[in-house]
Parts: sequence; structure tokens; C-alpha cells
Amino acid sequence: MKSFVENSESTDFSIYNIPFGVAVFNQEYIACATRIGNQVIDLATLYDEGYFENIEGLDDNIFEAYTLNPFIELGKPVTTKVRERIQELLTEGSTLSKDEIAIESCFFDSEEVQMMMPLHIPNYTDFYSSIDHATNVGSLFRDPENALFPNWKHLPVGYHGRASSIVVSGIDIHRPKGQMKPADQDKPIFGPSKQLDFELEMAFITNKDTEMGESISTKDAEDAIFGMVIFNDWSARDIQSWEYVPLGPFLGKNFGSSISPWIVTLEALDIFRIESPKQDPEVLEYLQFEGNKNFDIQLEVYIQPENGAENLISESNYKYMYWNMAQQLAHHTINGCNIEVGDMYASGTISGKDPKSFGSMLELTWRGANPIKLSDGTERKFIEDNDTVIMRAYNEKDGKRVGFGEVKAKILPAT
Amino acid sequence: MKSFVENSESTDFSIYNIPFGVAVFNQEYIACATRIGNQVIDLATLYDEGYFENIEGLDDNIFEAYTLNPFIELGKPVTTKVRERIQELLTEGSTLSKDEIAIESCFFDSEEVQMMMPLHIPNYTDFYSSIDHATNVGSLFRDPENALFPNWKHLPVGYHGRASSIVVSGIDIHRPKGQMKPADQDKPIFGPSKQLDFELEMAFITNKDTEMGESISTKDAEDAIFGMVIFNDWSARDIQSWEYVPLGPFLGKNFGSSISPWIVTLEALDIFRIESPKQDPEVLEYLQFEGNKNFDIQLEVYIQPENGAENLISESNYKYMYWNMAQQLAHHTINGCNIEVGDMYASGTISGKDPKSFGSMLELTWRGANPIKLSDGTERKFIEDNDTVIMRAYNEKDGKRVGFGEVKAKILPAT
Repeated sequence: MKSFVENSESTDFSIYNIPFGVAVFNQEYIACATRIGNQVIDLATLYDEGYFENIEGLDDNIFEAYTLNPFIELGKPVTTKVRERIQELLTEGSTLSKDEIAIESCFFDSEEVQMMMPLHIPNYTDFYSSIDHATNVGSLFRDPENALFPNWKHLPVGYHGRASSIVVSGIDIHRPKGQMKPADQDKPIFGPSKQLDFELEMAFITNKDTEMGESISTKDAEDAIFGMVIFNDWSARDIQSWEYVPLGPFLGKNFGSSISPWIVTLEALDIFRIESPKQDPEVLEYLQFEGNKNFDIQLEVYIQPENGAENLISESNYKYMYWNMAQQLAHHTINGCNIEVGDMYASGTISGKDPKSFGSMLELTWRGANPIKLSDGTERKFIEDNDTVIMRAYNEKDGKRVGFGEVKAKILPAT
Repeated sequence: MKSFVENSESTDFSIYNIPFGVAVFNQEYIACATRIGNQVIDLATLYDEGYFENIEGLDDNIFEAYTLNPFIELGKPVTTKVRERIQELLTEGSTLSKDEIAIESCFFDSEEVQMMMPLHIPNYTDFYSSIDHATNVGSLFRDPENALFPNWKHLPVGYHGRASSIVVSGIDIHRPKGQMKPADQDKPIFGPSKQLDFELEMAFITNKDTEMGESISTKDAEDAIFGMVIFNDWSARDIQSWEYVPLGPFLGKNFGSSISPWIVTLEALDIFRIESPKQDPEVLEYLQFEGNKNFDIQLEVYIQPENGAENLISESNYKYMYWNMAQQLAHHTINGCNIEVGDMYASGTISGKDPKSFGSMLELTWRGANPIKLSDGTERKFIEDNDTVIMRAYNEKDGKRVGFGEVKAKILPAT
């Protein structure tokens, strides 16, 4: 396949991707969008131009919405066909390639549009599914000899997070204030967090509502997953470590999480499927699965100090996940918990074995013991005010590149 | 004050209450409602009859909605006036009392209407704010000498719960299945929970959206709280105890929570204000408050076996809360976490010192050691299939009775 959009092959948004997002066009008009190369395409206008005719189930211009939820809710039989149609339309020699009027009205330079939060997120769950991350955290805070809790290899540990404070890339986040108890004090103190961290995660999004009491099997799980984004689960380690016993993370996390604006479909990621790591001990039957359910997606984290250059500080990979998405969703619903369209499920921090692949400052600096030196000569134990953290995710296989672009957010001083 | 609606004084829904809910009238028409005695009043039709004229900010018939969110979002200046107007209208000798046509079209016997979920709940948080409950749980699972964790008296411990599975009274709940690890087994097993429990809680609801980075002080917190419901936080103890380390409750809770259908306003509860328990050690400044922020509300829990009688098994009181609502909301937002209209914040299980006031089977039976004998001769360590659990909340002061009615749900066998 080759697109008529120039210079798109070597970008995250090649003809093999066709992601979905929501964009502001001409600083006033909001619609669902896709992207190829550096071109953002207004799907609502493209619909009006008649390019989505004869797709069963797509009877209304669902792209006029401010979120992708109505589109996603149509389910794979429709969304897959829409993606394939867009792919055809963007191929060299297509009808659209010759329709100058449509191109003029629907195609925008990516620099000219503003990306919005692509979803309404009814519920947000965060898992803890990277074995190297869980081992690192267990070693740092408990006992390197017994780093994993007894349940960890039997179920994908997860917890509910705050949906209201998930924001799209580009929205800056204020450093949270809160209560913490430094080791050298006998009482808790109040103030801005001194241990602000990122967590490198990926997140998937479901495309259906289920009834309470209903479960989704590992076999059916991927049909219920529309696609994925990059997820930065900002974490204030000092607030978190004081508050989290015994009911889990709360204010250490819920001040903000950042996602990349383009949802990359599972179909686009299909070329990156690889075998999952062997799970030993064997998992219970409802968590067993067949086929390649892990994905080889390269992940990068950069810190950019104010007025400084981007510093690559971590190179990880989504393939390191011990628990895959199908297992996470099957586990989440095995008790009858109902899911909703647009629900977001983050992976937990993704670390590999190599220290350069650790997905948080906590692990990269080993809780501040080994600060990271940046190109401007400064050091970082955690994230400083006015630092921008950028995460990227992509891969290329057989000449086909598919990526997520980036999630980028700056930490502003505490209010 | 005396209402023209007969026999309403001695009920939870006296003229001093005026709660808000959403009801199905004539099995087809949905509208916001209030209740007095055994009469449910269709507020949308009452609006159309002209009874809400000259209330500033109430320009549209906001009662035609399927949830109370649009009404609640108007904020106290409007919702308080609406409640006062309804109170006037229901008083003996009012214009409405003589308007037979309006009464005919707006008043329904409570047996004839079906109560719906009154809210869309964007986010749900559960606190852990009863000192006797936290002490009991700490004694049962850890060490009676160090039952409370070091953070407990310094901050209102809380965590995010699942909003999607909160349902209204009357919706039955299936016993959850899941993974658990009995003490006598060396591997986890899968099956229906054998330790299904209720948790007696109250929950409050916020009436505004805030921006990320914004905090709400203890002084301003009650202005942001519309009202309260009874909350049954169903819990599968065996699933919970295996999964919850280190990130908190997940599948042990998210299969379902039940709320009472009528939201009782803070204004109606004002007569029950009492002094808060002394907090020692002194809390940090952002958690300090003035005035009476606790509420004296009697709470009752009943188990009704299939075809059997109601058995009163617990009598507790909301006044036992160590942390009050103003402190909970101030803490929740001190890090800049944004809140939304309709967000729900549960108290955590409400237990008193007296074993008869414990708010869960876990505590009442001391983890099954002391089963409860029911009037039909059977015993309960936890909740059995086809048991109905009923919770009631009310009080009376100076001849003014205000209550919540009940939250009632039956446990169905696992699917």
C-alpha cells in the first residue's frame, strides 16, 4: 500500500495506521479525525462529501461528535470497515486523491489543528502488569528476596483510578500539594510533592456496555477493545507512600494523568503481535488464552528541561507485559463488573529487565540514589518544575511503520 | 409546619425532609420527583403547572431530565430555593393544597411508582472514616495492639471505587465469582464468593465541577455538597483479602454497590448536626474546621431470608464518623484533583464501639467466629443466596422526623 499523501510512509501515521482522534479545525470547529503523515483529516466533512456511503451501521454522521464514544460504540464490524475505507481512500490513485475540493476542505496540516481529549472516560482502571516494574518496586520498598506479593503471578493486580483528571497531551499539570511523612520527621508535613514522577504506561479502551453479572472471556476480549493510547500515570511518590496503606493509591495519583491524542486500533497493531511470556505457575482457567496476545511496541521517555533539549532517559517495550489485555479484561469482568464504552484500562508502569528500560524515575534513579544527568548538566532524581515529559510509542515491521505520536506535558509549579 | 398530605409527619418523608429522586410514573413517564409521606410528586408536571415561577436560575423545566445532575448543577442558591418552595406548597392551606387538578396530575401513591437511579455518577470514592471499623478490621487482619495504620489519624484514608456498578435500591445483585486463596490451600481457587458481606455506609454527592489544580477548603466544602444517600458497599471478603495487596480493593467490591433512591439534602439534615469527635493528634491546617460537622443519623441493617421476616442485626449511627464530609472533600481536592457534578463519596463502613453497632458481617460475626442467629432458626456468618439486605437511616428531633427510606437488595446465586 502507498498513500498519495507525501512523506507519510516513515511517520507514525503511515497508511498502515489510520488512528482516530478528535480535533479542533480552524480554531472553532470540532470533529472526529484521522491522521496520515502530517495531515489531519476532518472525518465529519469527509462523511458529508459522501465518502462513507454503503457502510452498514454507519447511517448518521457520527463524526460530528465531540468524542469518539458514539463511533467506538458501533463496534468492530463497523469501525473496522470505516478504517479500511479510509485506508482505501488514502491510497494512491483513489477517487479521493483526485478530488481537490474534498482534499481542500478535509485535510489540515497537523500544526494547524489542536487535538482534544478523544473520549469521554466513564471508568478508569490501572493494572500493575509488568513483572520487572512490580519486582523493582517490591525490592525498593520491601524485600528484594520477596519482591512480588503471593497474588502477583496468579492474577493481574489492578485498582480503580480517577477518570475525571485524565487529560490529553499538551495540557500542563500543576505539581500536587499534599500530606507526606519524610523518614526523618515524626509527624506528617504539608507542601508541594518533592518526589514527582511519571509512569510509562499504555492503555486500552473498550467499545461496549455490558450488563452487571456478565463476564468477557479471554477469547472474546479483543473484540471488545477498540484501540490503545500512551498513558502517563503521574505519581507523587512522597504523597503515595504515606497514604496508600491499606487501600491503595489515591491523592498520589489522582491529580492528573496524560494520554496521547490518537487512538491506534488493535487492527493497526496486529502486525506487532508476538508471543506472550510464559506464565509460571499456570494460571486459572479463566485467565488462559490462545494465540499471540502481546505486542512489540517500542516505548521512549524523554525529559525536556525548560528551554533545553529532549533527553532520552528510558527505552522500554510493551512486549514486556506479563499479563496481556485479554487477561486483564477477562479478570476485570469475571466477578460480573460491568464495563462501558470508553472505559480506559492502563497497563501499569512498563519496565524491562535492563535498567535503561525502567518506566519511572523511581526505578531509573533507584529512589534517587543514582540521579540522571541531563545534557544541560543538571541532574534529576525526580521531575522538577517546568520540566516537560514526553513519551513516544511506535514500531516498524516489514517496512510498515505504525506509532502513537506522543504524550507530552509540562509540570507547572504548585498553585 | 404541617402538611396537607395526611399521615406524613411520622414518616421519613415529612414536610421537614423534601428529598429528590427520579421516578417512573404510570410505568412510562420519567421525571425528577420529591416525596412526602407515601406520596411521590412529579416535579416536571408541577413545573408545567406554574408552581416554580419566580425562582431565579430555574428558567427551564430541568425536572424533565432522567437524572438529577442538571438540577444539582444549579447549585445551592437555586436548589435550596426549590426545596423551600416545595415545602411551602406542601403546607396546609397552600395554593397547591386547593388545586385538585394539579394534585390529581402530580401526586402518585409511592406503591405505584418505580424509583430509578437518581444520578449519573461520573466518579466514585470510598473513604474509611469510622475509627471503630478501621480498628476492628485492623484487629481482625493484623494486630489488635496496632490496629490503625500510622496514617489513619492524620488523613481520611480513601480510594477510588467503580462508578459503573452503583445501582439503585431494588436491583438484585448476583453473588460474584472470583479468585480466592483459602488458608488451608497452597494455590488459589476459583468459584463463587463464600464470604459475601455488606458494608453499612452513607454517601454524599457534589454539585459542581472544579478545574484541575483547584482545591475546596473545609469551610467551603458543604456548599459543594448537595445531599446524601444510604450506601451498601457489597464486599466479597475472600476475593478482597487475596487480591488487595498492595493496590487496594478491586474485584472484591466492584461487582455492585446499592444506594437508596432519595437524596436527602444537607439542609434537611441540618437539625441533626452535632459536635464532631475530638481529633487527637491535631490534624494539619487544611483539615481543620469550625462548627458542628457531624450528623446524628440512626442507621439500621436487616437481613431478610427468602420468605422470612426482617431481622435487625445492626444499629449504628453516622455520628460515629471520625472524619467528616468537609474534611473528606477538602482532603480529596487538596492535591488539585478535580470533582464533577454527581460524584459520589461514601463514608466507609460505619461502626460504633458497641458490637451491636458494627456495620458489616465481618465485624458482627468477628470473621465468622460468632454467627448471627436469625428468627427462622438459621445462622449467618456471611450473606447467603436469596437473602435480602435492607438498610435504613433516619432521626427525629423536636418532633421533626427526616429519613432516607431504605436501600434494599437481594443476593442472587452466582451466574
